[in-house]
Amino acid sequence: MRWSQAHIPTLREAPADAEAVSHRLLVRAGFIRQIAAGSYTMLPLGQRTRLKVERIIREEMDAIGAQEMLLPTLHPADIWRKSGRYDLMGDNLFKLKDRKDTDMVLGMTEEEIFALHATEIFSYRDLPQIWYQMHIKFRDEPRPKAGLLRVREFTMKDSYSLDIDWAGLDVAFEKHREAYKRIFARLGLSAVDVEASSGTMGGSESVEFIQRSEAGEDWIVTCDGCGYRANLEKATSALVPIEDGESTSIEKFPTPGLRTIKALAEAFPEVAAPERQIKTLVYVVDGQPTLILLRGDHELHEQKLIDHTGSTNVRPAHPEEIRELLGADPGSLGGVGVTHAPIIADNALRGRRNMTTGANEDDFHYKGVEVERDIPVGDWADLRTVALGDRCVECGSALDLWKGIEVGHIFKLGTKYSEAFGAIVQDEHGDSHPIVMGSYGIGVERNMAAVVEANHDDAGIIWPATIAPYEVVVTLVRPDDPAVKEAGERLYSGLLANGVDVIIDDREERPGVKFADAELVGIPFRITVGPKGVAEGKVELTIRRGLETEEVGLDQVVAKVTELVTAGRQLGR
Amino acid sequence: MRWSQAHIPTLREAPADAEAVSHRLLVRAGFIRQIAAGSYTMLPLGQRTRLKVERIIREEMDAIGAQEMLLPTLHPADIWRKSGRYDLMGDNLFKLKDRKDTDMVLGMTEEEIFALHATEIFSYRDLPQIWYQMHIKFRDEPRPKAGLLRVREFTMKDSYSLDIDWAGLDVAFEKHREAYKRIFARLGLSAVDVEASSGTMGGSESVEFIQRSEAGEDWIVTCDGCGYRANLEKATSALVPIEDGESTSIEKFPTPGLRTIKALAEAFPEVAAPERQIKTLVYVVDGQPTLILLRGDHELHEQKLIDHTGSTNVRPAHPEEIRELLGADPGSLGGVGVTHAPIIADNALRGRRNMTTGANEDDFHYKGVEVERDIPVGDWADLRTVALGDRCVECGSALDLWKGIEVGHIFKLGTKYSEAFGAIVQDEHGDSHPIVMGSYGIGVERNMAAVVEANHDDAGIIWPATIAPYEVVVTLVRPDDPAVKEAGERLYSGLLANGVDVIIDDREERPGVKFADAELVGIPFRITVGPKGVAEGKVELTIRRGLETEEVGLDQVVAKVTELVTAGRQLGR
Repeated sequence: MRWSQAHIPTLREAPADAEAVSHRLLVRAGFIRQIAAGSYTMLPLGQRTRLKVERIIREEMDAIGAQEMLLPTLHPADIWRKSGRYDLMGDNLFKLKDRKDTDMVLGMTEEEIFALHATEIFSYRDLPQIWYQMHIKFRDEPRPKAGLLRVREFTMKDSYSLDIDWAGLDVAFEKHREAYKRIFARLGLSAVDVEASSGTMGGSESVEFIQRSEAGEDWIVTCDGCGYRANLEKATSALVPIEDGESTSIEKFPTPGLRTIKALAEAFPEVAAPERQIKTLVYVVDGQPTLILLRGDHELHEQKLIDHTGSTNVRPAHPEEIRELLGADPGSLGGVGVTHAPIIADNALRGRRNMTTGANEDDFHYKGVEVERDIPVGDWADLRTVALGDRCVECGSALDLWKGIEVGHIFKLGTKYSEAFGAIVQDEHGDSHPIVMGSYGIGVERNMAAVVEANHDDAGIIWPATIAPYEVVVTLVRPDDPAVKEAGERLYSGLLANGVDVIIDDREERPGVKFADAELVGIPFRITVGPKGVAEGKVELTIRRGLETEEVGLDQVVAKVTELVTAGRQLGR
Repeated sequence: MRWSQAHIPTLREAPADAEAVSHRLLVRAGFIRQIAAGSYTMLPLGQRTRLKVERIIREEMDAIGAQEMLLPTLHPADIWRKSGRYDLMGDNLFKLKDRKDTDMVLGMTEEEIFALHATEIFSYRDLPQIWYQMHIKFRDEPRPKAGLLRVREFTMKDSYSLDIDWAGLDVAFEKHREAYKRIFARLGLSAVDVEASSGTMGGSESVEFIQRSEAGEDWIVTCDGCGYRANLEKATSALVPIEDGESTSIEKFPTPGLRTIKALAEAFPEVAAPERQIKTLVYVVDGQPTLILLRGDHELHEQKLIDHTGSTNVRPAHPEEIRELLGADPGSLGGVGVTHAPIIADNALRGRRNMTTGANEDDFHYKGVEVERDIPVGDWADLRTVALGDRCVECGSALDLWKGIEVGHIFKLGTKYSEAFGAIVQDEHGDSHPIVMGSYGIGVERNMAAVVEANHDDAGIIWPATIAPYEVVVTLVRPDDPAVKEAGERLYSGLLANGVDVIIDDREERPGVKFADAELVGIPFRITVGPKGVAEGKVELTIRRGLETEEVGLDQVVAKVTELVTAGRQLGR
């Protein structure tokens, strides 16, 4: 390709609202353009990189025996009603009607349709299967942002494993884990696998792949001691035991105007240190007002509440709902003697004595509360958010807490979808079983953004050779100089003949503009051809990562760069 | 790939509603499955062929210097309102609202968005450009049918040329015409280019590529004499001159109960032969009742009326609308003296005398009508449908009329979209011009179906090697025979090593089942490995097209088949 004929609209300025580095750089370097909130066009450079990402994913999926398919994106709503996800997905699901007034949805993910196709499998002899596709998905995100990191329309490689039993699923799951590690390595990422919540997908277990990045929206808990890794929405930690002293009797006491954990602790340090208080929250869980109890110094993680209750609709209660339920306002709430609403308590409250909590009477609290004696807890769960400084449950080391981008997510679904759609097979004894499914996803464009987040400098993007839009740029310092032009064209043809993905910058622009564009775009290798060098039989070779430049003989450079490119393509293999 | 591990659900029976051969065969051979009306999944075989079709299209587009992009499919409706197509597309356009109640549409085609991106080009120096994508499109077809031939969601390669002037557009248009011819040849099609209507796309000229097929929905007019080729909606023909005799005066006469051209001609053969009658139709054109006049033996082609009026909404008037307008019912209608409604007449009525037409009084007609004297025709146009037996306007030869499938369509759009979106560039003198655009489309899955329509026999599909899901099948007659298995596996590995796309049929099935499946699926070359042959050092090689079989030495077959496959891949190059 010739830069003079290519559509590479580089910009000096990023969009005013672009905060993430990848957003700024991908727009400025002419890879993407926004056409609506969370909706991007891949310009030619973006599409070149995107196709290379797809090819790597395809190669690694094919290598584990997966078979590629392509499913419609516009689904009859009835299919989603059958799995129960039509309502579950809420406003995230784009809904529409066709000309015959049939309810339709735009696919967010394809468990339903793949399960439907799995009904064509009847015997254990036709299992295992791994099916995948690389296709667009739609999500009506409430807050699209950060360029390609959170969008409303994107490409996902989604795959689905079908097995006769859970042991088979374990094998498929581990195959995917390894394939994903190879994919991320080849993309130039250092993503790690962490335990995660299964969310609306259902199933028994899930693992996310997280690329460490300040642009990420996930918080990850890791332990250097034993390697424990989990998303904050799933992570647990060990607690320092607390000495509660002997049992005492419960006693109401006035606490006028003390409505926060902190204020109460300061006023009554001897009985109401934060770790000696019970924090009482009221949530509406699938329509049912519910008390949620945590230790005073702990925070609820809502996803844990959602996962524990399996509910599709969880929200904090409104002030008037709280007063109606408990007869008091927040700040004086508690679970003592409450039997007209279910109570879920965090595990950290188990066995605790001499605690302080609100009396459901404004400006009064109880002290001397023995949780299991005085509060009718119906359900115990891990509900609290791990905090920096907590210790690892596995090995006791201090836990680390960092932000990252979810670049992949794999799920053990089990039989939820195969049962809903009747994907039943017979085993070797003639007995029927629902197929055991796994579901596995990688967002293609989000991975491109994650690569940029992890590979850039002040001058621009630093693509790994595996997915660079071009591997090499031959920059003509003076395209109007016949010797420069002739030498540059010879190098260009030589690299093309060697199968190198090369672009020649033959534009009539100042060399500084060309260098800046090549660096912004992030082409791994630049060969600079200038009049002085050509006269001496030399060119300059610049490595994008580090921007180091060396002189190479005109006659050696094609072989040398071909070798560098070939080595670069092996990244992560 | 091993057939025993592949998901190839072949069926004995086609769906009851499947009429088109390609529909029946693609379902039976396990390439596609319907999930809703006009909505199909590509199963693994279908996706393999589809990816090969895409690759051929991509190679030929890249060869004419086109740059690939990828655009969102979910568009803000405002973009379509800006071009005027939001209403124009009517119910064919899927419409929806996002969570913020913004009107959105699912893209049917992408002139609007590409024109939007063209606003980033400012100078003639950055032209010409050809941009393309390969992406799904949505059309809410009133009657999806015939498998992949008429669907609601499909992949289209759509490209757009951008030029400074019309001469540049002509170059881009011809480049596309040649690229399309190469694409169709490589797919195993014999599609020809024909003049066509531009329809809702707008623009000055368009050419369709039509594959002859009874499953097609387009009627094509061709002339063997001079090569004239046009879609019936655009085609014209020469008429045999008619001797009308001397002018006479107009006279009303009673025609009780005579309400059809035929009945009137039989009752009054001397003045009302069909070619001497004027057929009067009433259409509502953008809300305006309009008289359409044709010769009695001619038929209106509605698309010609749409194209001539440029109207977005054309329909036959209802009976009550007709009576209100003309005071009579169909059968007695005419244009004599009608000045309160526009009249459009077909060119074949120009200069005619002594004609007969309805008197706008039930059971009365006029005779002696001189069209241009007695009827206030406001507009003359080519409105009639060419009929079998008509003569070529170019050379006078008899015209042929046949059915075909539209496999590609190319348009000279001009400046409609660049003006709407402000895609303006400066020429070398600093003068501003709207970019001159062309638009070019190929439906990927429809082409797959067209290939099947054109390449099949009673046993199944006959894929050209260029797009066969597998190029070769190694069929083990007795996979449980160690010698057969060993020989077959050796051939399989040998072919894989040669880069051949091969599948080994290692299933424990009867040979007849395997042969039938291989033929149904349409794999170009089959190597049959049986115990007797292996003992003699021989295998059978069957060519799918013609099903001829020959014996080949075990040691020669890999080389021979590799050669056949390599030759097959060159089809149309």
